[in-house]
Amino acid sequence: MLKVAVIGATGAVGQEFVVALNKHKWFELRQIAASERSAGKKYVDAIRDPNSGILRWHNREEVPEYVRNMIVSKVQDIKPENFDLIFTALESDDAQTIEPKFAKSTPVISTAAAFRYENDVPILIPGINDNHAELLNVQRKNRGWKGFIAPLPNCTTTGMAITLKPIQDKFGIEKVFMTSMQALSGAGRSPGVIALDIMDNVIPYIPKEEEKVQVETKKILGTMNAGTIKSTSFKVSCTCTRVPVLDGHTETVFVETKSATEAEDVKKEMLKFSKNVTIKGLPTAPKDYIIVHDDPTRPQPRIDREINDGMTTVVGRLRKDTAFDNGVKYVLLSHNEKMGSAKGAVLLAELLKDRNIL
Amino acid sequence: MLKVAVIGATGAVGQEFVVALNKHKWFELRQIAASERSAGKKYVDAIRDPNSGILRWHNREEVPEYVRNMIVSKVQDIKPENFDLIFTALESDDAQTIEPKFAKSTPVISTAAAFRYENDVPILIPGINDNHAELLNVQRKNRGWKGFIAPLPNCTTTGMAITLKPIQDKFGIEKVFMTSMQALSGAGRSPGVIALDIMDNVIPYIPKEEEKVQVETKKILGTMNAGTIKSTSFKVSCTCTRVPVLDGHTETVFVETKSATEAEDVKKEMLKFSKNVTIKGLPTAPKDYIIVHDDPTRPQPRIDREINDGMTTVVGRLRKDTAFDNGVKYVLLSHNEKMGSAKGAVLLAELLKDRNIL
Amino acid sequence: MLKVAVIGATGAVGQEFVVALNKHKWFELRQIAASERSAGKKYVDAIRDPNSGILRWHNREEVPEYVRNMIVSKVQDIKPENFDLIFTALESDDAQTIEPKFAKSTPVISTAAAFRYENDVPILIPGINDNHAELLNVQRKNRGWKGFIAPLPNCTTTGMAITLKPIQDKFGIEKVFMTSMQALSGAGRSPGVIALDIMDNVIPYIPKEEEKVQVETKKILGTMNAGTIKSTSFKVSCTCTRVPVLDGHTETVFVETKSATEAEDVKKEMLKFSKNVTIKGLPTAPKDYIIVHDDPTRPQPRIDREINDGMTTVVGRLRKDTAFDNGVKYVLLSHNEKMGSAKGAVLLAELLKDRNIL
Amino acid sequence: MLKVAVIGATGAVGQEFVVALNKHKWFELRQIAASERSAGKKYVDAIRDPNSGILRWHNREEVPEYVRNMIVSKVQDIKPENFDLIFTALESDDAQTIEPKFAKSTPVISTAAAFRYENDVPILIPGINDNHAELLNVQRKNRGWKGFIAPLPNCTTTGMAITLKPIQDKFGIEKVFMTSMQALSGAGRSPGVIALDIMDNVIPYIPKEEEKVQVETKKILGTMNAGTIKSTSFKVSCTCTRVPVLDGHTETVFVETKSATEAEDVKKEMLKFSKNVTIKGLPTAPKDYIIVHDDPTRPQPRIDREINDGMTTVVGRLRKDTAFDNGVKYVLLSHNEKMGSAKGAVLLAELLKDRNIL
Repeated sequence: MLKVAVIGATGAVGQEFVVALNKHKWFELRQIAASERSAGKKYVDAIRDPNSGILRWHNREEVPEYVRNMIVSKVQDIKPENFDLIFTALESDDAQTIEPKFAKSTPVISTAAAFRYENDVPILIPGINDNHAELLNVQRKNRGWKGFIAPLPNCTTTGMAITLKPIQDKFGIEKVFMTSMQALSGAGRSPGVIALDIMDNVIPYIPKEEEKVQVETKKILGTMNAGTIKSTSFKVSCTCTRVPVLDGHTETVFVETKSATEAEDVKKEMLKFSKNVTIKGLPTAPKDYIIVHDDPTRPQPRIDREINDGMTTVVGRLRKDTAFDNGVKYVLLSHNEKMGSAKGAVLLAELLKDRNIL
Repeated sequence: MLKVAVIGATGAVGQEFVVALNKHKWFELRQIAASERSAGKKYVDAIRDPNSGILRWHNREEVPEYVRNMIVSKVQDIKPENFDLIFTALESDDAQTIEPKFAKSTPVISTAAAFRYENDVPILIPGINDNHAELLNVQRKNRGWKGFIAPLPNCTTTGMAITLKPIQDKFGIEKVFMTSMQALSGAGRSPGVIALDIMDNVIPYIPKEEEKVQVETKKILGTMNAGTIKSTSFKVSCTCTRVPVLDGHTETVFVETKSATEAEDVKKEMLKFSKNVTIKGLPTAPKDYIIVHDDPTRPQPRIDREINDGMTTVVGRLRKDTAFDNGVKYVLLSHNEKMGSAKGAVLLAELLKDRNIL
Repeated sequence: MLKVAVIGATGAVGQEFVVALNKHKWFELRQIAASERSAGKKYVDAIRDPNSGILRWHNREEVPEYVRNMIVSKVQDIKPENFDLIFTALESDDAQTIEPKFAKSTPVISTAAAFRYENDVPILIPGINDNHAELLNVQRKNRGWKGFIAPLPNCTTTGMAITLKPIQDKFGIEKVFMTSMQALSGAGRSPGVIALDIMDNVIPYIPKEEEKVQVETKKILGTMNAGTIKSTSFKVSCTCTRVPVLDGHTETVFVETKSATEAEDVKKEMLKFSKNVTIKGLPTAPKDYIIVHDDPTRPQPRIDREINDGMTTVVGRLRKDTAFDNGVKYVLLSHNEKMGSAKGAVLLAELLKDRNIL
Repeated sequence: MLKVAVIGATGAVGQEFVVALNKHKWFELRQIAASERSAGKKYVDAIRDPNSGILRWHNREEVPEYVRNMIVSKVQDIKPENFDLIFTALESDDAQTIEPKFAKSTPVISTAAAFRYENDVPILIPGINDNHAELLNVQRKNRGWKGFIAPLPNCTTTGMAITLKPIQDKFGIEKVFMTSMQALSGAGRSPGVIALDIMDNVIPYIPKEEEKVQVETKKILGTMNAGTIKSTSFKVSCTCTRVPVLDGHTETVFVETKSATEAEDVKKEMLKFSKNVTIKGLPTAPKDYIIVHDDPTRPQPRIDREINDGMTTVVGRLRKDTAFDNGVKYVLLSHNEKMGSAKGAVLLAELLKDRNIL
């Protein structure tokens, strides 16, 4: 059993970590840390809003027994050398200063954006760009660390990169236009989206989101060569919006391919990719990596987000595009807090351990 | 005063007609008709749901006094020759058979799709393609009618066509990708979207909607020449979704232009177009035809839909596109039941009267 | 295995029946029936809305494999003598004529109101008034039927009657005031609550609901004596409202007791009752019959409705009342489609079989 | 023109003050103050959320022109002697220390709870207990202040007290049971209700709310005598909940009266009271003080909250109670931020000026 800590354990993403690590076969959660406000409290008290008295717990499962009475530590009281692995769910500013301290001694798997865009840092999606993981060794050497920082992509990038990968491999990609309709639970910063802002409404803007998705997608689908990642040359353009949905990011995608393609062929490639994906057999891996619906009314976030416990990317409305000479369009759904965040991070940890990088 | 009738007066669009015609300067609503179920009842009773007892009235204003006790007629009891103009808010199947009967004697302005795609039928948006109105005379001649059928576009087409027009005129257009997040009140067929289907959800499909928007946009922005409309040659690709918003269709638009352009230039063109739009001074014309927000969090449907009583197309997030060499992207909001439907139809009637076509 | 049929299998309640009977230990679902519109179709096609194309399926679980391709029969094609038991989920008008035909040969467990108020018909809640079941024999004799009609209460009655029972037994009851905040899925009649009616809203009225709850509660908690049920003498007053919640009826209850009582004592009685409830061990019986929360922010419908798969009545905010000399007030949550409807009906069937009444 | 200041001008209630004072006939808003975070900013910048970039403005009207660029002061920079009247919209803790400082020189009308329960402080609802205003003179003398503190009741108290008053006057009251379904905008503390907490949910608890409503109602409807208020002797019991509604508190009320009464009589008394209410003619007074609907589906918050610009208490479902020997039950709706808060405070100021108490 590897000894792990979760930093930022009280927020929405941190809560998913706590659930994902419950009775985990390989990882034992030994310590949790969060902000000053929470430190010293029992976990179950730290996640209760002091004004309304409401337990800020957003999982379908109850707070797991094993963590209810665990005392929340201050971040600065974490001794990284005590752990084999540290998961972080921090705001980017905090991650910027805290993660390198941990990485000196210990591998860090992070959901924050702070290091994603550095040259010796891969952005890993298990099953999509596993070979980029070798950059972690470059990073170790570069920085003189025993550990490393391995960030996940933004939760809005994940589903898109996963569905583009089989298209890129078979048909090549020229351009991608994506519009996201993002769920409330994806709004990182505490306290989250205010009900008065979003009920009966759409917010057409999420600060910095589009730039992240555009850059990350190209890096993830780029090529690893001689110790560097070269981003793909295709173009990506996004508009990211927030909608009144609890969980699950819905995205409409328009893809121009290099070679001619029919929707049916793309479906086949997606399913083939899903069937042969590298992560099969890892503890957190889903039965289906990608599902493609023929029912045009799917995916729907409320209906489809919990399929395979939120680890499957669900595709629907796959059809020939009407504006590109070669291209398809489709709608995808990805659970922003499961595959797109904490559970995806745990899956990454499993992959790295399986490959002896951890 | 022109004598007018409204057919389909009890539905969501019909209700907007009844409000738009309240105390109208030029039009007097003399008769209302609806389905068998409603016929013979007072208007205010006909719009009450028999099961729940709820008044199905979706306007911020109360049911106007003048129409509360008006008796709803059967459609077949309407004598078209008694009217100078008939507004119809019918399902497409019904429109197919009913509208031609009326048009023999009387001009019909329709919100239905039934005749939009016929060669001698223009799809008119006041201020955008007024010159297409001359096709109505061709239609009269062709069909031997004293009246005509003048359909509005689908409510999802309206805002997009309005915002594309100044871009087309100045920069030329190559391709358009659009994703809509459509409001509940836009679902035409009675009884509308079921709460259990849409709460905490997005429905990624609206039957036939995308095809309509794609074809209509090109026809509206096409050229009138020698008695026919030639659709524009640019390509349009849409994905239409339903979101839990009461009123107001939000659309994200990515436009490839023929010539290089900056967002700032497009903004200028939109505002110039708005300022000089042909419909200024008509009773139902808004103060602003297009508003362009610099605030990146706008437009929001709940906040912006009622601006200028729902007759303004609100644009925001106008910025250079990152995937097209030449192009911009933006978000727009259009009130699907006001400018996009009944009030847009009344505005069209005003235009046609002003040009002596009515 | 008893052979069972479900009548009204396509509606919200019918869907819960289909789920509750999936792999049931004692009951085998052999035939399903629904309205003309659905008859002859596969189940999975019959529950799809023809206009929007949306699958009208409101369960967290997928449509069970065993029923997906089962052909929906017409109600009149059901031969009751082929079944050991028939579950019905019908509108009251239909139940009025259909259920007696079935009951001639076969026991009927019904979610409809049609027969609830007749003298020889008990309204049964398993665990609350099991002894009323003997009235079914009276009914058989009276009516010359081999079967019987055993209706469940209205879904709003269930949670209230369950929580009042231990209070009544120990402290006696004088008066009850209840306000319900009912979920969307409880609106029986197709197609259910329209999104435009309920979003950002409360509907303060549900036709006939309050009368049902008032009468049923008194009958359920009445005494069985010499072949008749005498309703309790305490007074009940309700106001029933609809709120924008998918599932789970929340109710605020104010109870005047005969003897002095503290909230702590009522809690003890509820928990003792829950522990000793008669239905323990039946296949569909929950681990907890009643849960009492000390956390004042519970119960919440979204958080608590699925506890023990929707079969537990969840109580919170139990405190001394401030207007009655003797009394308490509390909030309860009951899953309107599980314990309050189809799954409660299956539990009742299990009880009746266990007692050899089936 | 009286010179006024608004303290706490950036919050939801403060925003209503700013709207209510726009172009006011008698009051000129000269200065606005808010927390440190906002001080020094233009009003329109101070109300923008720094994380999401969203303008936190919750009024149907745009931010009034006159206040957009007004600079927000620190509270401690307010010189009370410069004003004829100060409106405060503060958290109770802050009100406790700030309001007495202001009151030394200047009348304060407050929406905070801090002083409501003190002996020499009336809780005033214009039109209901105007005579309690004389206690303000007692207060002045007691405390040696030139000004005074005149708090409004909690927004949940207002509608109930208004509707109970005509019942109390004519029939006498023994007991009241009330359940509230409160809107999101009524949650005072910044930042308000989190969308993840309330979507598809009901929160059955609002800290301290019930105690406030119970005590305040009895004080407001109490008798003024020899310089003190004696609370009424009737009993009040409440359960207060939060529902996913933007604005407008819905309350179900069960009233036991001293004398026998029919619903029809209560309706008459309410309408008579409304017609003769003392506040007629004041600038902010509504056309109707109370409206009583016969339509059982009313009041609905989304439909009825803006009637008479949110200053009318809307009653429906008025009927004989079924548990009390003498009594009625009904549903009421009161706009929590208009009559129940800022606009009610402005109406109170108008009344006090009209009576020469200001």
